[in-house]
Amino acid sequence: MTLPDKVNLIEVGPRDGFQAESKPIPTDLKVETIEALTHAGIRHIQVTSFVHPKWVPQMADAEEVCRRIPAALEVRYRALALNQKGVERAHAAGITRLDLSVSVSETHSQKNANVPVDEALKNLKEMVNLARQEDMEVRVGLQCVFGCAYEGPIPCERILDMAEELLSMKADMISLADTTGMANPLQVKQLLSQLLPMTEEIPLVLHLHDTRGTGLANLTAALECGVNWFDTALAGLGGCPFIPGATGNIATEDTLYLLHSMGIETGIDLAGVAGCSQRLEQFLGRSLPGKMYRLADQAVPS
Amino acid sequence: MTLPDKVNLIEVGPRDGFQAESKPIPTDLKVETIEALTHAGIRHIQVTSFVHPKWVPQMADAEEVCRRIPAALEVRYRALALNQKGVERAHAAGITRLDLSVSVSETHSQKNANVPVDEALKNLKEMVNLARQEDMEVRVGLQCVFGCAYEGPIPCERILDMAEELLSMKADMISLADTTGMANPLQVKQLLSQLLPMTEEIPLVLHLHDTRGTGLANLTAALECGVNWFDTALAGLGGCPFIPGATGNIATEDTLYLLHSMGIETGIDLAGVAGCSQRLEQFLGRSLPGKMYRLADQAVPS
Repeated sequence: MTLPDKVNLIEVGPRDGFQAESKPIPTDLKVETIEALTHAGIRHIQVTSFVHPKWVPQMADAEEVCRRIPAALEVRYRALALNQKGVERAHAAGITRLDLSVSVSETHSQKNANVPVDEALKNLKEMVNLARQEDMEVRVGLQCVFGCAYEGPIPCERILDMAEELLSMKADMISLADTTGMANPLQVKQLLSQLLPMTEEIPLVLHLHDTRGTGLANLTAALECGVNWFDTALAGLGGCPFIPGATGNIATEDTLYLLHSMGIETGIDLAGVAGCSQRLEQFLGRSLPGKMYRLADQAVPS
Repeated sequence: MTLPDKVNLIEVGPRDGFQAESKPIPTDLKVETIEALTHAGIRHIQVTSFVHPKWVPQMADAEEVCRRIPAALEVRYRALALNQKGVERAHAAGITRLDLSVSVSETHSQKNANVPVDEALKNLKEMVNLARQEDMEVRVGLQCVFGCAYEGPIPCERILDMAEELLSMKADMISLADTTGMANPLQVKQLLSQLLPMTEEIPLVLHLHDTRGTGLANLTAALECGVNWFDTALAGLGGCPFIPGATGNIATEDTLYLLHSMGIETGIDLAGVAGCSQRLEQFLGRSLPGKMYRLADQAVPS
């Protein structure tokens, strides 16, 4: 079993996690969490998204979050944008690393972004150009790569074609999202064996959801293919809060347990991340989907 | 990625799951659940354990459960025993397939079974002999194989030595339990690569817990080694009910999703199992650890 020596985690809890919560999270708590995550050794954090507050009220304080998070030189903050206006807002707020994406599913693109995939790709190109003009690093990603709730499995050729499109935009990073949590390890290995030779020069990030309990099995399959960049969310935040026990992103702490127990370095202190999750559990008043944030004292030393 | 074509699941929810619940489960509901599981295509069920009712009150109706479950010829019922008295009770109750085990951890054996490992092995031999006299098939297992909460990791040589002991008893099946949920895929592959050549002639069953979120990653690693027998529990029952979200066994439904999505046959209908879990969720009045039992309509056809 060949595994990478070191893995980079991008913490997406403050964006993908927080945006799924119905209870408004005070900006103070967001900033406090991001600060504590950096103290735990996390070096990449997606801190917010620049979307219309009418659609995602939880992210209405994007500018304020960016203004108040500590300017720690060793930490790389990122933010998500969905349109030109969002890119402009992110730049104005001092964001230098931008996350953009399109869906590979026609139906999902129509329902989620209100445009067909072709138009979404055209918009994406314009956003990448704008971000470049503003000297931002850009990560471009594909959504619903491992299946769509409306369309089911997506043909591999389509993923590869769309990945080619992204690569032609000369992005700094590429990401693949299992938006629906439908991936399985066999599919992960099959797709990556074709995709990784195409993306050799830039990091390929996997964004996995644990909706069906298979998140860390898929992560392990990707590790075996050599992938060493993953999005994770503290305590597995990101699930729909109205479905008890439903999970969103793979949990940062559970991922750290898995990686550290296999001798893979991350530079991150599990107990430090778990402290943030325990604080959020208390604030949100419900048990969160991750497991290791409750067992941090039984973790493997990093 | 080489995977088995077909996998056998042994449903342990009615024993390992139910025994962890503090709310008494009526015998009616136990029998109804076992019957519904057989209708869903489950062919191996650990239905109860013959232990002292003072220690495990939830299993006090072991005899009654055995008397009332339907005598479906295609279903193989099993039961657990911890001592000679339990073996005798199981035999008297009509059980023909018996599950026995010992811990590989000295401290765990002392705390859990009140005897050192040497003595536990001696007792196990006597139980195997007794069961044989009564024409019962016997499965013998090792507990804490992938780590002990008290002792930490257990040396591989010790596991292999103890597996030799079990093999010398000429059991019909061998099982390895990740009692604490501490296993990782690398460790699973390393141990199995040494163990499988020793156990070629009889089924090797893996009993995994999802305490740290790594259950299905470990299952996938074992599948890749060729293991095709696993214990699972409906809805991931088996966790301590006082820790919200804590999980016990890997969930039958999540395992089925993973297997079916990779084209592996089980003969089991996920929605049928999920129906039992939904009924139990209602009775227990809390959200259960598994994920797919809530999403059965979004499963892959088996």
